[in-house]
Amino acid sequence: MVFYSKKYDVIVVGAGHAGCEAALASARMGCCVLLMAIDLDKIAAMPCSPSIGGMAKGQLVKEIDALGGEMAKITDKTAIQYRILNTRKGPAVHSSRTQNDKIRYHIAMKSVLERQPNLDIKQAMVEQLVIEDGKIAGVEDHTGFGYQAQTVILATGTFLSGLVHIGFKSIRAGRAGEFASYGLPAHLKDLGFQLGRMKTGTPPRLKRSSIDFSKFERQDSDQEPVPFSFFTEKITLPQMPSYLGHTNKTSQKIVRDNLERSALYGGMITGVSARYCPSFEDKVVKFSHRENHRVILQPEGLDTDEIYASGLGNSLPPEIQIQFVRSVKGLEEAEIMRPAYAIEYDYVNPIQLKPTLETKRISGLFMAGQINGTSGYEEAGAQGMWAGINAAGKVQERPRFILERYQAYMGVMTDDLVTRGTREPYRMFTSRAEYRLMLREDNADIRLMEKGHELGLIDDDTLKDMKERKKQIDSEITRIKGTVIKPQKAVNDYLESHGAKPLSHAVPLDQLLKRAEMDYHVVETLAPGPDSVHKKIIRQVETEIKYEGYIQRQLREIEKFKNLERMKIPENFDFNTVHGLSNELREKLSEIRPASLGQASRIDGITPSAISVLMIGIKGLGD
Amino acid sequence: MVFYSKKYDVIVVGAGHAGCEAALASARMGCCVLLMAIDLDKIAAMPCSPSIGGMAKGQLVKEIDALGGEMAKITDKTAIQYRILNTRKGPAVHSSRTQNDKIRYHIAMKSVLERQPNLDIKQAMVEQLVIEDGKIAGVEDHTGFGYQAQTVILATGTFLSGLVHIGFKSIRAGRAGEFASYGLPAHLKDLGFQLGRMKTGTPPRLKRSSIDFSKFERQDSDQEPVPFSFFTEKITLPQMPSYLGHTNKTSQKIVRDNLERSALYGGMITGVSARYCPSFEDKVVKFSHRENHRVILQPEGLDTDEIYASGLGNSLPPEIQIQFVRSVKGLEEAEIMRPAYAIEYDYVNPIQLKPTLETKRISGLFMAGQINGTSGYEEAGAQGMWAGINAAGKVQERPRFILERYQAYMGVMTDDLVTRGTREPYRMFTSRAEYRLMLREDNADIRLMEKGHELGLIDDDTLKDMKERKKQIDSEITRIKGTVIKPQKAVNDYLESHGAKPLSHAVPLDQLLKRAEMDYHVVETLAPGPDSVHKKIIRQVETEIKYEGYIQRQLREIEKFKNLERMKIPENFDFNTVHGLSNELREKLSEIRPASLGQASRIDGITPSAISVLMIGIKGLGD
Repeated sequence: MVFYSKKYDVIVVGAGHAGCEAALASARMGCCVLLMAIDLDKIAAMPCSPSIGGMAKGQLVKEIDALGGEMAKITDKTAIQYRILNTRKGPAVHSSRTQNDKIRYHIAMKSVLERQPNLDIKQAMVEQLVIEDGKIAGVEDHTGFGYQAQTVILATGTFLSGLVHIGFKSIRAGRAGEFASYGLPAHLKDLGFQLGRMKTGTPPRLKRSSIDFSKFERQDSDQEPVPFSFFTEKITLPQMPSYLGHTNKTSQKIVRDNLERSALYGGMITGVSARYCPSFEDKVVKFSHRENHRVILQPEGLDTDEIYASGLGNSLPPEIQIQFVRSVKGLEEAEIMRPAYAIEYDYVNPIQLKPTLETKRISGLFMAGQINGTSGYEEAGAQGMWAGINAAGKVQERPRFILERYQAYMGVMTDDLVTRGTREPYRMFTSRAEYRLMLREDNADIRLMEKGHELGLIDDDTLKDMKERKKQIDSEITRIKGTVIKPQKAVNDYLESHGAKPLSHAVPLDQLLKRAEMDYHVVETLAPGPDSVHKKIIRQVETEIKYEGYIQRQLREIEKFKNLERMKIPENFDFNTVHGLSNELREKLSEIRPASLGQASRIDGITPSAISVLMIGIKGLGD
Repeated sequence: MVFYSKKYDVIVVGAGHAGCEAALASARMGCCVLLMAIDLDKIAAMPCSPSIGGMAKGQLVKEIDALGGEMAKITDKTAIQYRILNTRKGPAVHSSRTQNDKIRYHIAMKSVLERQPNLDIKQAMVEQLVIEDGKIAGVEDHTGFGYQAQTVILATGTFLSGLVHIGFKSIRAGRAGEFASYGLPAHLKDLGFQLGRMKTGTPPRLKRSSIDFSKFERQDSDQEPVPFSFFTEKITLPQMPSYLGHTNKTSQKIVRDNLERSALYGGMITGVSARYCPSFEDKVVKFSHRENHRVILQPEGLDTDEIYASGLGNSLPPEIQIQFVRSVKGLEEAEIMRPAYAIEYDYVNPIQLKPTLETKRISGLFMAGQINGTSGYEEAGAQGMWAGINAAGKVQERPRFILERYQAYMGVMTDDLVTRGTREPYRMFTSRAEYRLMLREDNADIRLMEKGHELGLIDDDTLKDMKERKKQIDSEITRIKGTVIKPQKAVNDYLESHGAKPLSHAVPLDQLLKRAEMDYHVVETLAPGPDSVHKKIIRQVETEIKYEGYIQRQLREIEKFKNLERMKIPENFDFNTVHGLSNELREKLSEIRPASLGQASRIDGITPSAISVLMIGIKGLGD
């Protein structure tokens, strides 16, 4: 093979949401990086929903941002709708979500990539990996030309053996209209990787002028949109509404009557579907008692009239898709611009990865995004960043970069993936995080910016600003706790007018703020702080005080958690030497090779007694 | 087959520059139109150069504009560089050319299409035509779903059996990264169409930051950019320069030494190349005496750092492409973002078409753009408009829409195509037009807007404005001709200071203007007209007066031309009944079926004596 003369530190294969963050992180850490994509016009494409963020996903985006990643910044440059979800629920589940202008998102990300020093971008399809002495050495493209690198990150999305289904018609494609890679997955199998098959899909896109929006409920952007990124000063694009509607009995009937003609129930699909993002066929079968399901019409951009019909995903033939779509009130005349489709693709079960997302099998080979069995732009972006940092770290001989489960959703996700693997598309949920009161959107900067700074991804000024914010928060909390409020008339009037019990004796202000019916307004009214109490920190001060008890409890749990995490299992530990473990568990442990007792404890089927036995086995080493 | 319930008047297959103009023209004429494309994200893509216009092509764009088409308007919305070429030559060859922001061009055209009433846009690949009783009845897409229509326009570009070549690697693709259609060309062959094979290609795209621009000569936009469209008031985008450089002996040597490894000279390609847009391999072989060739670096857009390297097109393997590109001064460190490639595709020799671009074989089936063997966005757009108007006209039972060779470059091109066919990619040149002094950019509105108005494509106000302009031109010409200039001192001083011979006796002002060294400035100085002489008409007044003699001569030639054109050949005329024609000519005439003696006279191999014989044969009919 002929190789390009330049030698890269990191090659990233695929320029979706994982690949972009991976390439940027490595390049910004000072590595010489090559990003390869089949079609440069599809960089950072949003092939499904135009949304970024949402429950738990919003936290991931904020974490990427706090580490110095790009997703939140690009989102702010291109968002045409902002909504903070769950504002009536606790702060742990407040989540930002945007609707984005898809093509502007692509343009903005491509522009950032192109202007990033140390980063080359090349249009090519990678067909083979180059491996020397069991270590990655580079990649070979479809023309047979080679590129050398110390590390390679595969971020290939749905492109490995991609197969698009519309009814009984199957087309080899990585996404509609794009080439799939069949060489690379075959090569991965040859290398000994276990590949699985997954299925996802996308709803139809409708023509704006063919929709009767008066039959839908308009959902506007928040009145005062809050930027996603800690770095964004101002939101500049005009905002657009979405529209909420519902399917009905007729919709159900059309799909039920034609179930056998769908790819999904007609036997065309072997891949495992996403449970949490069901195709309408699944809704009909699995939620047959529900008569109507939500349909949300989302704009795909400012300049385009394509409308994303969330909730109408299916794998039916075109004529049934048309009937089905038109059964929805307001869509009686709808014209489909792009049909819904299902897509199957190969993934690599992530138990084959180390916590750094490096493969156990081949040193220097990393994987990130949908190839690891996840779904979602945000999950992909977070893994891309993680893999990019660790690939660069490997080249630069830095310590591995790991965030623990109590530090970030990113940590929860990667730990879930590499410890338990996944058989169905993995999506982030707040329920997956044990310490979610600690892992809020609002404190992602405080949690992670220092780490981003250590990596060289966050600059000094940003870190200084964050530290200043943290100091302000701490001092405001101290001030509030030290402020005593007496049962004066004005105070009690205020409390009663806000539906709260009046005071009978003096109390510290934080006790008032802790009351369920109170928010920071009580502080502003009864004992306003110095002018320096910036709007940005109010939410954090409020949360830290109101949820102090819960937070303390979680901190204690984290300490317990840390104890097990601290008990490292040596990399070459022989699990067969541990007495009292079943053969099944020995095999599982040998396959997954947990790095700590903590990680071992989260492996499916591991019991507390097995952990005790394992602990003794490991401690024995020290004897 | 299952058909969509809606019945269309016109279906356009392919949404490149031909397809977009075709769909818009038909829809604006009131037809119910469906535009189908494999990937809606590639609508109005510019897969090769980012330029619009240039020699003869600029005239085509102005003609599309004067008829109510879209190309010039979109160009003005997205152009980042304007240059009028040949300003030192005669007005017949003044040509506008822009560099455009590619992705903005796509966005703007897609937006116009989406907001056009009567027009549906659907993402699908057409695999088959539906034909009933020898007439077109619709199309079938890749899922087996059918769409019915009275007329179908194929505007499939390079997608029929498209094959991309990079060195000896061949990839089935319609453009890099896009699916080719193999079903449709097979189907066309089955229907009896003769398909040929052509080859084109595109140069590499380079990374801006890897180029040393100081080694190139900067070419800026014109200081006062003149809009392309008659409808544009103002140019809004910032302007960007191009950069001119040259290849050298080393470049020649690298390509010559590796000629056998190129797709073109290594035997991979059977299609016929464009003579006027040669790949660098061709330059080395066919222009071996020339040591250097021009390289123009053109920006692909405002947001992207991809640079189009005009002049460096080739079909070499990647490692040689890199050497070759880096041999150019200033490109020593250049990073290739997208490699150059050659592409082969099927075309339908256009002698199989009527002058309306309807196929002779299947009623209601039209073809436009590269499928007819042409190259260039402008040639495609013009044919698209022509086919769109005629398809709509067929549905609405209007007379066929034809522009004669003396009326428009569009007329020259379609007449060339259907009369002579083409064996190599056909490109528009001013030299193809016999009456090019009549077919100027500046008078496209006067030549064609009335026709656009008759078709319903130009509104009343626009027509009124054009007529007003024409009146102003005529009255200004009359005024100038009626103004006598006496040999006063001030006059002769002016003339002498402009290098012109002083007057010895009084002359009409037009005689002064006719002098080679004079321009409209002489009018403005010696006998300024009323304020109403708008800047827009000055160029036309000047041209009409300065070139009056030539124009009169061309008008006389046109009259002669018309005589032959007026002699229509009946549609079912049997050429075998004509005595004195060779068998070869009889066959040729029977195949091409010229509509007039004029058209017959332009068929290759037809002699004046054959025309005389044919004239007698036709006149015999009247006896």
